[in-house]
Amino acid sequence: METEYTTGPISLSAALCDAQGCLSMAALETRLIVAATRHADNIGVGYRDLMARGHAWVLSRMSVEMAVMPAILDTFSIVTWIESFNRHLSYRNFAVLDASGHPIGHARSLWTCIDIASRRPASLSPVDLCSARECPIAPMPRLTTISAPESVIPVVFTYSDIDFNRHVNSARYVEHIANAFPLDWHDHNRVSRLDIAYIREARPGDVAQLRLSRADGEVIIANITAPDGSDYCRASLTVVKREK
Amino acid sequence: METEYTTGPISLSAALCDAQGCLSMAALETRLIVAATRHADNIGVGYRDLMARGHAWVLSRMSVEMAVMPAILDTFSIVTWIESFNRHLSYRNFAVLDASGHPIGHARSLWTCIDIASRRPASLSPVDLCSARECPIAPMPRLTTISAPESVIPVVFTYSDIDFNRHVNSARYVEHIANAFPLDWHDHNRVSRLDIAYIREARPGDVAQLRLSRADGEVIIANITAPDGSDYCRASLTVVKREK
Repeated sequence: METEYTTGPISLSAALCDAQGCLSMAALETRLIVAATRHADNIGVGYRDLMARGHAWVLSRMSVEMAVMPAILDTFSIVTWIESFNRHLSYRNFAVLDASGHPIGHARSLWTCIDIASRRPASLSPVDLCSARECPIAPMPRLTTISAPESVIPVVFTYSDIDFNRHVNSARYVEHIANAFPLDWHDHNRVSRLDIAYIREARPGDVAQLRLSRADGEVIIANITAPDGSDYCRASLTVVKREK
Repeated sequence: METEYTTGPISLSAALCDAQGCLSMAALETRLIVAATRHADNIGVGYRDLMARGHAWVLSRMSVEMAVMPAILDTFSIVTWIESFNRHLSYRNFAVLDASGHPIGHARSLWTCIDIASRRPASLSPVDLCSARECPIAPMPRLTTISAPESVIPVVFTYSDIDFNRHVNSARYVEHIANAFPLDWHDHNRVSRLDIAYIREARPGDVAQLRLSRADGEVIIANITAPDGSDYCRASLTVVKREK
């Protein structure tokens, strides 16, 4: 069993690109999750292994920092490895490599093992397969709720937002946040770092609020919040000017 | 240059499945489009080749018929080939194969070559690479507009609906149609055949109506319609009871 898993080279089809002709942050997050799932499958803590005990991995936090996003017909690959773990959770890191194997970005993530019926943390007998590979981006921050949002946008979760875990898919929250900004904004700006914490599960038909605020510099804080005021997720977006 | 293109075996990661633990019709359509794009790249009429002349392929119609949908950790592959073509358009078919190479579904599609600036049909010098491989599903039907819808649902297109062609992505219309039916409906029903015609390009921020009607038997007709009454797309969904 390998301490690292590397995807094959991925050639980014035009059909998988966003309006700027690049991989979107949401689509990248999905690819990171798929790579994590494949590694978990390979080392005996995958979907089938956990499902047999009524357990599942749930993504709790993720931080992604990209120097450049893959664009149409670029080739890239993803390396993933476990940094540390205990009986309930696992810290997993990622590197995104360009066609020549040079890192163009990194990610950190925190996964929790839950009991599917109770939705409470479950215990698993983890495999000690940590890698000492370095992840040269800042740790995942603690994200707090916005007390006085600058803008509030309604969000309705739909059937297509839901995944096999019967809750809103992690990447779909990222899409709902991206939707708060018009096409012209995306043409001129790029999210170079996304920090997101998944706090509470949303269900189809749930009506929520996207609350936005500005932090220091070019950082946007976004919460997706339930009617009772609790947050489904909290995110921080570091924004850079998009190169032409 | 090959008259057929076959994807590698695709193992369906849990993270890519819908609420029923299967590939969704929208996600399948995206994979068919990606396979078509790869084949076009390989035979010299791909994204880069057309972009160099200011042209692009636009999906005009698609019909997909699936005996069974791939589920979590199932392995499948896609074969695609050109049935016929002329200077402006191309009829392209698909077979979806299970892990043992047995067909579990087929699709037909019609692609139009457009001039990106004018959005009008363009001419290309096609390569004669048709295959005589059989596509054993009914031809793509002519879909007409609904005159008296049984229900009307508002649809708002967002940034995440837009692709590199700067219009609403083909598969996103399919998602908006799927969203009209609640989770419980999807738990008990499956779309075994989708026919869809893309008529007019929608842009982000466009506000539309999803109009639904019932045809003979278990067939649902769906139009996504602009405020002026013209249709962005028209679809027909053949519904079967989902096996447990």
